[in-house]
Amino acid sequence: MALETVSLNRSHDGMQGVYRHASRETKTAMTFSVYVPPHQAGAKLPLVWYLSGLTCTHANVTEKGEFRRACAELGLVFVAPDTSPRGEGVPGDPAGAYDFGLGAGFYVDATRPPFAQNYRMWSYVTEELPELIAQEFPVDPKRQSILGHSMGGYGALTIALRHPDRYRAASALSPIVAPSQVPWGIKALGGYLGDERAAWRKHDTVALIEDGARFSDFLVDYGDADQFLTEQLRPELLEQACSQAGIPLILRRQTGYDHSYYFVSTFMEDHMRWHAARLAR
Amino acid sequence: MALETVSLNRSHDGMQGVYRHASRETKTAMTFSVYVPPHQAGAKLPLVWYLSGLTCTHANVTEKGEFRRACAELGLVFVAPDTSPRGEGVPGDPAGAYDFGLGAGFYVDATRPPFAQNYRMWSYVTEELPELIAQEFPVDPKRQSILGHSMGGYGALTIALRHPDRYRAASALSPIVAPSQVPWGIKALGGYLGDERAAWRKHDTVALIEDGARFSDFLVDYGDADQFLTEQLRPELLEQACSQAGIPLILRRQTGYDHSYYFVSTFMEDHMRWHAARLAR
Repeated sequence: MALETVSLNRSHDGMQGVYRHASRETKTAMTFSVYVPPHQAGAKLPLVWYLSGLTCTHANVTEKGEFRRACAELGLVFVAPDTSPRGEGVPGDPAGAYDFGLGAGFYVDATRPPFAQNYRMWSYVTEELPELIAQEFPVDPKRQSILGHSMGGYGALTIALRHPDRYRAASALSPIVAPSQVPWGIKALGGYLGDERAAWRKHDTVALIEDGARFSDFLVDYGDADQFLTEQLRPELLEQACSQAGIPLILRRQTGYDHSYYFVSTFMEDHMRWHAARLAR
Repeated sequence: MALETVSLNRSHDGMQGVYRHASRETKTAMTFSVYVPPHQAGAKLPLVWYLSGLTCTHANVTEKGEFRRACAELGLVFVAPDTSPRGEGVPGDPAGAYDFGLGAGFYVDATRPPFAQNYRMWSYVTEELPELIAQEFPVDPKRQSILGHSMGGYGALTIALRHPDRYRAASALSPIVAPSQVPWGIKALGGYLGDERAAWRKHDTVALIEDGARFSDFLVDYGDADQFLTEQLRPELLEQACSQAGIPLILRRQTGYDHSYYFVSTFMEDHMRWHAARLAR
């Protein structure tokens, strides 16, 4: 797996890199970013995964996320994958909508044609890219954690619930928590996985918890001015599921904040501290 | 002067706004951003001006500058103007180059046709926009300071030297310091002001100091991996001029940093603290 360096910039005493490689899972070139904080030669650092939301690439959080200062202080590597395969021959939304296809991989391995060929973001994010990162960067694979925003928050929580021994912390900013019950999720899971709803439950945070999946604890922030709050995000469903399952959840409703990176960047440092505390154990 | 709100997002407990207005100086619509930190009702806050570099609009620093956390903590309003007039009928570089015309106003009032009609960024940034900001935002015009990046660093230092009583602090990231002696500046000052070099000296930090202009002190950061360092920026010329004039200068050469916003965002907090200390006096 050859790794091409797209850019490398010194930032907050560490290095912000952007890289490209040929993915065996998506059968396309995939781009991702990695911030490596200042560290002693030979050190193996804890690693935070950040999954992005609809329409995003690695670039949104890399440019606007304001995570590097905290990661430099706390000694965290920060990895931001893309949100879907891209390129010629990769099918997108038939109508060109933003919420399916390109930029909207929904962190599943698609089973329906024509998407099954390239849309393998679950395996890409949980298997292929972790292997590559472990080979190429100064990380300790025993100390990984995961967070995300919106569709990426949904990805982070579902991945954590299905791999509770691999990720030591999980958190989310404005996540979709019950995709089976909201328009974005119904469109995406139906399109990638088909109409058999039993297959959706492994990609639905609330359903996973109902079906017995557990995680140590979650931190979740929402803005109360988020335009997607009541129709797409529905944090009350996560609150109910965690309460019934006995999963500790810190759910914070942030006054006046919307769905944008102005919200994400405001609370990013809090999330990095949450992750660092659990990665240090 | 009617002000149109383009966007308004809560961030770091304050509000990040983007605004548009019809400028009397440039005779175009001009866009700028203002961050207002959390504050008590009725308070009048100190105000930091940030001038951007070649090719930039207000958006670069607004999205990538990582200034809001520090401004929220320190109680600073942060204003970022555009770098040139824009729109139909505004002449640009005859060859379409990035370093003259659109995105490259160089903070002068042009005297040469066809640029004299719209390219009045000096008066826009030092007169028209300050009046508008004082009318529309909770600021204390007696407590203003100014900084900038690259072409904007040059703008900030020249404006401070010509208005030492108005700005209580001035600093720069990777500034052009002697435009009369480097290719970017020779092209821009010649194009906007004509070949008579006497007129350039009021827009050249080093020449202004040689001609007797003074300021309390400057903070200037450069990256030693900046690709423009030796040809366009030439910080040693500022160091010599300040030394001969007895102007206190903190000039920091930052190891491994380039000309990008990864550099700017790394040192932004330092600059906000420098400004806040002088605005509090």
